[in-house]
Order: sequence, then C-alpha cells, then structure tokens
Amino acid sequence: MHTFSVKAFGATAADADLKLMEIPRRCVAAKDVEIDILYCGVCHSDLHTARDEWHNTVYPNVPGHEIVGRVIQVGHEATKFKVGDLAAVGCMVDSCRECESCKDGLEQYCEKGNINTYNSPDRHLNQQTFGGYAQRIVVDEDFVLHVPENLDPAAAAPLLCAGITTYSPLRHWNVGPGKRVGIVGIGGLGHMGVKLAKAMGAHVVVITTSSGKVEDAKRLGADEVILSTDNVQMREHAGTLHFILDCVSASHDINAYLRLLKRDGSLTLVGAPEHPLPVAAFSLIPGRKTFGGSMIGGIQETQEMLDFCGKHDITSDIELIDMQDINSAYDRLLQSDVKYRFVIDMSSLKDQS
Amino acid sequence: MHTFSVKAFGATAADADLKLMEIPRRCVAAKDVEIDILYCGVCHSDLHTARDEWHNTVYPNVPGHEIVGRVIQVGHEATKFKVGDLAAVGCMVDSCRECESCKDGLEQYCEKGNINTYNSPDRHLNQQTFGGYAQRIVVDEDFVLHVPENLDPAAAAPLLCAGITTYSPLRHWNVGPGKRVGIVGIGGLGHMGVKLAKAMGAHVVVITTSSGKVEDAKRLGADEVILSTDNVQMREHAGTLHFILDCVSASHDINAYLRLLKRDGSLTLVGAPEHPLPVAAFSLIPGRKTFGGSMIGGIQETQEMLDFCGKHDITSDIELIDMQDINSAYDRLLQSDVKYRFVIDMSSLKDQS
Repeated sequence: MHTFSVKAFGATAADADLKLMEIPRRCVAAKDVEIDILYCGVCHSDLHTARDEWHNTVYPNVPGHEIVGRVIQVGHEATKFKVGDLAAVGCMVDSCRECESCKDGLEQYCEKGNINTYNSPDRHLNQQTFGGYAQRIVVDEDFVLHVPENLDPAAAAPLLCAGITTYSPLRHWNVGPGKRVGIVGIGGLGHMGVKLAKAMGAHVVVITTSSGKVEDAKRLGADEVILSTDNVQMREHAGTLHFILDCVSASHDINAYLRLLKRDGSLTLVGAPEHPLPVAAFSLIPGRKTFGGSMIGGIQETQEMLDFCGKHDITSDIELIDMQDINSAYDRLLQSDVKYRFVIDMSSLKDQS
Repeated sequence: MHTFSVKAFGATAADADLKLMEIPRRCVAAKDVEIDILYCGVCHSDLHTARDEWHNTVYPNVPGHEIVGRVIQVGHEATKFKVGDLAAVGCMVDSCRECESCKDGLEQYCEKGNINTYNSPDRHLNQQTFGGYAQRIVVDEDFVLHVPENLDPAAAAPLLCAGITTYSPLRHWNVGPGKRVGIVGIGGLGHMGVKLAKAMGAHVVVITTSSGKVEDAKRLGADEVILSTDNVQMREHAGTLHFILDCVSASHDINAYLRLLKRDGSLTLVGAPEHPLPVAAFSLIPGRKTFGGSMIGGIQETQEMLDFCGKHDITSDIELIDMQDINSAYDRLLQSDVKYRFVIDMSSLKDQS
C-alpha cells in the first residue's frame, strides 16, 4: 500500500518527552477521507499511553483522539464527505463491523476489539495506528464525523472524547427533564457532563471535593453544588438523585455517592480509577441501585452528540497550546492545572523542523 | 388495644437458645386477618436476628417471615380473605403507604422504612413485631397473600422470602425466553432462582464452587453448570450471560463473575456479604455492565410470584422440622447442611409446654 509522510509529535519510549517525528499515512483508498488536522484535544489517555502507564504501548507512539480538521481528499467510493467539509475523528478508526455490538451501532464495544485511533494494530500498514498529534490523518469515512460549522473547531475537538464519553451514558440512562442528575468531579469529562446534562433538560447537581470549584460549576450550568467533604450536605442530599455520572479517576468512596441516589438510581463510572473500588452490598440492595460503567460511544451516537452540541452551541472550555508545549502541558495535566481541556493548535506543527 | 396470648419460640438474648414463650397478638381489628400458622420457613435472617448479628435486635425476639397458614378470623372491613383461605405472610406486615415507593407498589423500599414481620416497632402494641415461629399471627389484610391451593403449603412457605427475593430481580431485569441467566450459589435463594428462571423460559447457567452440586443443579433445572474454581470453564463462558443473580452471602470476587456478562449485562446481589466487595472499573466500563442489588419484592409482586408458582407448580426443596429442633437446625444452617430450606411444622408447637 502506498504511503506518504507527515510531521507528527510522538514518544519513542515511556520516559522520553514527545518530539517531532515523521510518520507514514496510507494514501487515500476507495472509502477513505484525508483530513488536514486543525486542532487536537489532549486527553489524559494520551499521557497514559505515551508513558506506557497501561503497559501496552508500542513505540513510537503518536497520541491524540480528539481530532478536528478539514477534508482535503476523498476516495472515489466515499460518499459521506466532500473536500472542504469540517470533519472529526474520535477514539476509534475501525471495528469488526460484524459482531452484535457493531451491528447495534456500538462499535466501542466491538467483540473483536475496535481499532483505536492510536496504539492499535493498523489494518493497512505494518505498524500501530498513529493519532492526531500530526498534520494529517486518513480514515475510513464510516469512522469520520461531521462537525457543525457554527461551533468553534478548536473548542469542538474535546467533544470527540470528553463529549461523547459523558453524552452516551447520560442518554443511555435517560437523563432529561424531571430528572435530578449528579456529576462527580469537574475536570475534562465532568465539565462536559454538566453542560450536556443541563442542555438535556435535567436538574444538575455537581458534587465536588473542592470549594474552589463551586462558582465555576454554577457558571457551567449546575443548579446546585454539593461539597462532598461536608457530611451535613451529603446527608441532606441522600436519596435525591436519579443518576450520577462519576468522572473521577482517583480512588474514592463510591458508597458515599451511592447514598445520594434515589431508589432504582444508577451511578456510572466514566473515569477509571486504577484500584478496585470497595462497594458495600447494603449500598445497593435497599434501593435496588446499580453501579455501572460506560465507555465513549458509538459512531452514530457521536454524530448525534455533535449535532446536539451544534444545536445547543456547546463546546469544551479549552486552553489552546502549541504542539511544542505538549510536554509541559502533560505536567500541568497531572496537577489538574487546566480549565478544562488543552487543545493543540496544529498550525504550530507546520513550521517545525 | 385488646390482645390474646399465643405460644411461640423465641430468643431472650443473643447467646441464648430459642425456647418456648408466650407472646401477645392484637385482637383482630377492622382490616385484620388472623392466621393459624401451619408452616414457617427458616431464613438465615432469622438466625442473624436471633443472635443479634446485625446489632439491632430488641429482645425477646421471635423470628420467622416465611409464614403459611389458614385464615381463622377476618375483621369486619376486610374484604380480601375469608375464613378457611390458605394465606401467607412474608417479610413485611406494613409500610407508610404514602411515599413514592409505596405508591409504586414497592413497599420493600418504603422511604420511611417498612414494618418487618419481626424485630420492627409494632404500630399497634408497645413491643417489637413478633414473627412466624408462633401459633398465630394477626396482620392487616393488605400485607397478607393468597397461596394457590395446588401447592404443598409446607414447601410453599419459603416462597415468601427466598422465592420473592429471587423472582423480583429476575422480573425487573427482564429474564425470559432468549436470555442466558447465571445463578451464583445454590442454597436457599439460589435453588429458587434456578427453578424460577427456568420457568420464565430462560437458559439457566448455574455457577458454583462445589463440584458436588453439579448434578443437583441440573435436577433443579440448570441447562449448564460452570465450576467457578475452573479457570478454563470461566474463560470459556466469558461474555455469554445477559444477567447474573448472585445469591452468595460470603465474600467473593465479583470481578470474576462480571467477566461472564455480555455487553449491557447486569449482575444483581441478593445475598449480602458482610464486607464491601472490590469492583474494578474495567470490570464495568468496557461492556457498559452494571452491578446492582435487590431486596425481596412488593406485595403485589409477591402475589404475582405465588400465582406464577401455582401455575408452574414451583415450591422450595425443604426439610421439615419440629419447632423444638430449631436450635440444631440453626447449627446445621451455619454449615450449609440443608437442601435447601428448613421449614417448621407448626403443629409441633401445639403440645409444647
């Protein structure tokens, strides 16, 4: 298969800084779309993978799965995009397309394992897939999304991971008018959860450990804010929420949050704490409560989410950085020193050499 | 309020054997039903309460919440029962009747706390409620059930707790034809779970630690049996079950069972392990799985369960004992030495003195 070379930023080892490199992209095939990347969001998964914290990284690694750009070429059998379209790529670039999950439009749960945008075996080239910290990307049109033109394309980039990761469980657990929804943890995911749940018509209750985030939570759209360190507030809100979206990646006491749920309420994890979370049987049994998890969203649902955000004018709160600032951005990410998502301005890569 | 005295077996202290005692019952009021108790099942909760293992027992304590008997008197405003009816009382004898859960027919989740059949504050007499280890019981007709006459009344008694505790979650999580259902733990609850799930039309897979239970599980109706101690069997069945009913009260590795679930599958606890169960985020997130709990069932659903059992001729596998054998039965219960439920023949209490 023919390839061409593009500039990218990637890691060659777990303990190496990300640096400029050249990577191959396949030349556009029949159903492919080639995108000139304008912006790429910085997800915590990028850092985990670049530094091999999940022990499965194949080097070199080029992270980035919150990709927005312009279509610059389409294959002769591709029908969904035309040159000039504002397009996006999220966490997946392919799946088996045959299993029950794929047929149900839930490619994220592909039973044979989907192809992640980076660090998955590439189906076309003898390498791992390379992500969005690059000038261009070539993806099968079935895994490319349309981005509403009214959205700021830089601030729209994080919708491709932080947006869909929160949108999908909010929809799946029927969040909407008349529902009281808790959002735990206000960071890259949580701040999107607040905006989306509010736009869906729910009464949004932010639960945070940080009194410094109370005002910002309200600005984002929260109707109420509970300080989880305040036992009185936690007790007063016991049994009041229909659904809780838990966006915290650190270890935390799930039982304290389960107490906030009403009968038949659900708490869903989208953050992924490293260590198992102890759950008491009596946190679940007396109110028929459930504790669950959710992972990104399917392609059709991702498009639905982007259209929803277009309609409601929702994007991420971002801090725009240059590509060469990625290593210091990772350091700041580890200190939660970002409100609420770094996005790389990929024009900064053009003049790098 | 007028009372009358009946013989009962109860405990006067955590470390005392159960022994014969006299307890008061209220005289039948307008909406009450008086039942001559024929049989009472022995639930592990009886033992926990009699021995104050939940640290909330008020003595004297008379356990028993799997009660079947004949109606011998009805109040002048009671319309649902007549003298001679085969009737039953389960885990509750009243609830607030006003909260959202009560209005939804889910009295077991009453927000003000329902009145348990034993060891709850009695609304009528200045004492705790006394359960079914007794000659008679007087209960508001709204908390009394009809027992199908085709069922063996002794073997029907455990339906009132073990039956409804397993029936309710199987219904709530839509178990039926086309569904593959796992039942973990074959004891008082689990053996009912197998029979009920099979009668609902599901493909039933028993998961047990004990190779000695394989044949019995099949006799009870299991289509397949997995030995959970066999890693090969567990791996082969990964991702194959829609729903798992977990009837184990001892500590166990929930993550091993969550792996057996298909995408969107649910595991529901009805046993209540004493210590919190560690749940890994990645046991839930990659398949949008849920881990939940369920507690007995509402009054209307309990009647539905009894009618279902009448139609499908389902009762518990029991060992009938005399009232005076209760203390040795408790000892055997602690060693899981019963297939699968002790039931007390209450006629044995008549001649006790």
